[in-house]
Amino acid sequence: DKEVNNGGDRLICKLSGRRNVVVNDFRGKTLVSIREFYRKDGLQVPSGKGISLSTEQWSALKKNVPAIEEAIKKMESKLR
Amino acid sequence: DKEVNNGGDRLICKLSGRRNVVVNDFRGKTLVSIREFYRKDGLQVPSGKGISLSTEQWSALKKNVPAIEEAIKKMESKLR
Repeated sequence: DKEVNNGGDRLICKLSGRRNVVVNDFRGKTLVSIREFYRKDGLQVPSGKGISLSTEQWSALKKNVPAIEEAIKKMESKLR
Repeated sequence: DKEVNNGGDRLICKLSGRRNVVVNDFRGKTLVSIREFYRKDGLQVPSGKGISLSTEQWSALKKNVPAIEEAIKKMESKLR
């Protein structure tokens, strides 16, 4: 689902019922927020549960996607 | 930097001085935590600022990396 919500933020994807990835502008800085939202008066309001990454931090995360994948596989193979 | 910290969690990458991506096991479930840590008695302790994604939520995030990239570009072109 792609849509723009009330604050002009861009909702990129839902990760679960309440968890969203949103790209927004905060004082002229672009942020990638991975965050839980709650409903208040029909609006989606960001909760404190989550993290807002600068574009530099997002780039670091993106670069490490393969390493994260590898770590998940290792962790899962230990758990089984 | 890859290392295993005190709790057996796997530190995947630093996003900033205090922000880390960690893959850990919580009660038999693998979690990808994007979180701020603080130092206490020489140990890295997770703070409440962050989010721990299930592997399903992580997969949803990963699948949406191109959409997030596109949204950042659009946002940055508006800001300039």
